[in-house]
Amino acid sequence: MKIRVYYEDTDAGGIVYHTNYIKYCERARSEIFFEQGQIPSLSQSSGFVVRDINASFLATATLGDMLHVSTDIVNIRNSSITLLQEVWKEEIKLFSMEVVLVYIDKGHPCRIPDIFRDIFKAF
Amino acid sequence: MKIRVYYEDTDAGGIVYHTNYIKYCERARSEIFFEQGQIPSLSQSSGFVVRDINASFLATATLGDMLHVSTDIVNIRNSSITLLQEVWKEEIKLFSMEVVLVYIDKGHPCRIPDIFRDIFKAF
Amino acid sequence: MKIRVYYEDTDAGGIVYHTNYIKYCERARSEIFFEQGQIPSLSQSSGFVVRDINASFLATATLGDMLHVSTDIVNIRNSSITLLQEVWKEEIKLFSMEVVLVYIDKGHPCRIPDIFRDIFKAF
Amino acid sequence: MKIRVYYEDTDAGGIVYHTNYIKYCERARSEIFFEQGQIPSLSQSSGFVVRDINASFLATATLGDMLHVSTDIVNIRNSSITLLQEVWKEEIKLFSMEVVLVYIDKGHPCRIPDIFRDIFKAF
Repeated sequence: MKIRVYYEDTDAGGIVYHTNYIKYCERARSEIFFEQGQIPSLSQSSGFVVRDINASFLATATLGDMLHVSTDIVNIRNSSITLLQEVWKEEIKLFSMEVVLVYIDKGHPCRIPDIFRDIFKAF
Repeated sequence: MKIRVYYEDTDAGGIVYHTNYIKYCERARSEIFFEQGQIPSLSQSSGFVVRDINASFLATATLGDMLHVSTDIVNIRNSSITLLQEVWKEEIKLFSMEVVLVYIDKGHPCRIPDIFRDIFKAF
Repeated sequence: MKIRVYYEDTDAGGIVYHTNYIKYCERARSEIFFEQGQIPSLSQSSGFVVRDINASFLATATLGDMLHVSTDIVNIRNSSITLLQEVWKEEIKLFSMEVVLVYIDKGHPCRIPDIFRDIFKAF
Repeated sequence: MKIRVYYEDTDAGGIVYHTNYIKYCERARSEIFFEQGQIPSLSQSSGFVVRDINASFLATATLGDMLHVSTDIVNIRNSSITLLQEVWKEEIKLFSMEVVLVYIDKGHPCRIPDIFRDIFKAF
């Protein structure tokens, strides 16, 4: 998953605005589904939501940089999945995040649908 | 409608990223409805969409600036409304835009509901 | 610090996109400085950067909601400061985050300038 | 220039938030420079700024769509350049914009540097 840094991603400090690394990770998660011809939701009322983020900002990126995002599965539970996602500029790790996603239907956690479990297992 | 310029609004050029002035105008339009306890849509399938924008960027804003947005109605037609919106920093006009909004239901233009016509007329 | 939820803040799930709560907290931090007539940086080469975020997403907000952000100082060290920031919708806590900021000059951590220490102490 | 629609690009209406088409066009413009190993600015004090936008929103895109942006040069003047940029979803034109960019140095329009004129001419 490659990501170019555009003007919209930077701020007046001349570097990528901090929350954008977290957006890059969300793009990488969605892309896992898009590449299988899926969107990460079975209906209007259901889908994955972010419950916890534990993130470290290690170095900075600037306009025009080409970054890549790595995604690893830490564990899959009944209604949640934990991922380790990192943003890299070549060999430099810029950002690292452990994120817990919960599958929600009508506002309540529920078992992650098999179609989505299979996508993560095959990943 | 007052708007503060935060880091997220600026880019590596040190100034407000150009599309954000257009977002500020959308905030001002939505605020007209929110202040009446409404959202600018009667159902999932209907609402206002932007059809045309004719915008000029006249001066720039920077981090921490306090801006305000003015909104004037140019005309109201059956299914569309044209507004003139401007973004100011004190006495300096930074941005000016004429925007045409169309009311859509299930993908087709339709008459703007009376409740929304009344909100604009009272504005 | 009050924040209105506009269209730009929501996503196709109908709720506020997760990283926007983290942006709201950054707005609240910057506002502490703006209200004192300062920006949170003494020069082009220096300023606060986010080093760690530990965040929980507890409930969701939707279009038109009026939120507020609370900010409390956990501790102030030589070159870093830890804050607890929460986003509320009336009495409902939507989001909670502990964030560590480091003051950087020319890429290296350095002592937080007294003018900024005083702003935090008076907060 | 291909662009995937992610959650961050959509809003509570379920479609791409209107200003994002204008951001996609900016990405395409910057990419012209990045692909030549350049950024579109020779110094901190100079660069292209958007002066005028004349845009029409013709159809909508949704989560997961793959879009592409076309860019054509309308004319190049001494200190400004006019482009026609369009966003497409396969054979459907979603968005069309004529944009005037001005090259600025220390706040004043000046002749577009030859290195940038050459990049546009070769485009």
